[in-house]
Amino acid sequence: MTYCVAICLDEGIVLAADSRTHAGIDQVSTYSKMYRCATADDRSLVILMAGNLATTQSVIDRVERDLREDKNRNINSINYLSDIADYLGDILKARIGRHSSGAPSHFSPDASLILAGQIWGELPQALLIYPEGNHISTSRETPYLQIGESKYGKPVLDRFLSRKTSLADAATCALISMDSTMKSNASVGPPIEVLCYTKDHLLDKQHHVFNADDPYLAVIRNTWENQLHKVFSMMPPLPKPR
Amino acid sequence: MTYCVAICLDEGIVLAADSRTHAGIDQVSTYSKMYRCATADDRSLVILMAGNLATTQSVIDRVERDLREDKNRNINSINYLSDIADYLGDILKARIGRHSSGAPSHFSPDASLILAGQIWGELPQALLIYPEGNHISTSRETPYLQIGESKYGKPVLDRFLSRKTSLADAATCALISMDSTMKSNASVGPPIEVLCYTKDHLLDKQHHVFNADDPYLAVIRNTWENQLHKVFSMMPPLPKPR
Repeated sequence: MTYCVAICLDEGIVLAADSRTHAGIDQVSTYSKMYRCATADDRSLVILMAGNLATTQSVIDRVERDLREDKNRNINSINYLSDIADYLGDILKARIGRHSSGAPSHFSPDASLILAGQIWGELPQALLIYPEGNHISTSRETPYLQIGESKYGKPVLDRFLSRKTSLADAATCALISMDSTMKSNASVGPPIEVLCYTKDHLLDKQHHVFNADDPYLAVIRNTWENQLHKVFSMMPPLPKPR
Repeated sequence: MTYCVAICLDEGIVLAADSRTHAGIDQVSTYSKMYRCATADDRSLVILMAGNLATTQSVIDRVERDLREDKNRNINSINYLSDIADYLGDILKARIGRHSSGAPSHFSPDASLILAGQIWGELPQALLIYPEGNHISTSRETPYLQIGESKYGKPVLDRFLSRKTSLADAATCALISMDSTMKSNASVGPPIEVLCYTKDHLLDKQHHVFNADDPYLAVIRNTWENQLHKVFSMMPPLPKPR
């Protein structure tokens, strides 16, 4: 399984992704799900990936090949983020279609992507690209997008995030959301990648990798856990039934 | 959608259920999902229900009819909780089978049940009954069972519950878990029913119903929210990337 979240703020963008993949519970491995595109200086793009690994790898492979072969349509030649999302959606849908045809009914090559970043002159954006090739963006009211195992970590995002949240607070929030997910689903796991992008700073992405034994991850986890227990002990008791 | 949780503790049992059902987002209604069985004095039984409402209603109807007609096999005549779970599982599977046959492929009459309670001489137990008719119980390490929309509310249960948790704390925990679920899924909603059962007190179940405007529910929700924001503001900031 996978958990990726993209948060789009007035200040910029925060992305987080786990690195555990598995084909059945007895075949677990580590793959980065955060692809930082090698783009021209007028743009900064990152792709998060969830779902079938063969599908997402073949999408990235195609993106890189189109760039190398300087195809008409590639992530550097397209002028708008939503058009790049369409381009990625087309590749994604084609790869899924190819892997579906003739496959047994229990096999799903589905995958989802999040494209996040900025093209100079536009605002930073995050876009969720569905297996069907279409996409949605964040809104002022819902400043985040999730792919993969999204439910365990959603309440924390709903409680703390707005467009006005700082990059630093959003990064903490993403890590707590990731921690809640890892606690409840063993197939989501470290290393955890976090990327902070400040609006209009195209060449400067702060990329963090937290391994399982990272001291900061431990501090976040333990502080959150201990403080939550304190808060829990303060809750007023149930009244008598009426 | 539905969210029900059953927590089995050394002290007894805590149950919580929402009351919102819907057939499509444009047809929302209120139904209790906590059925307190009218049983003999040697036992205390409650059934929680999630899934297709026609299925769960027909299961309860059958349970009541078997009791009224004094059938050989009914919730008063069977001597062990796990055998009652088998009895309920048989009814559930039969009803699902009946509603599935000839139905269009997108229609699912599936439902799940939780049977919780105590028969005199046994320990209190909670058992989750699957649409297939089989069941599982809680364990010392995992003292709770969930049916319906389970993921949003699971991290809170994982953080705070053990077999040694008091009934009062478990009830608070169940309400926080319910609150997190309602915040993230609009199809889970009040009134919220909570039932506390103290071990060996067969005739004394504390049953609470919290409406949307219940002051205690508001205190729990606001205290939790405000204190969480305080804890969040205490979290240490992300270190510089290495």
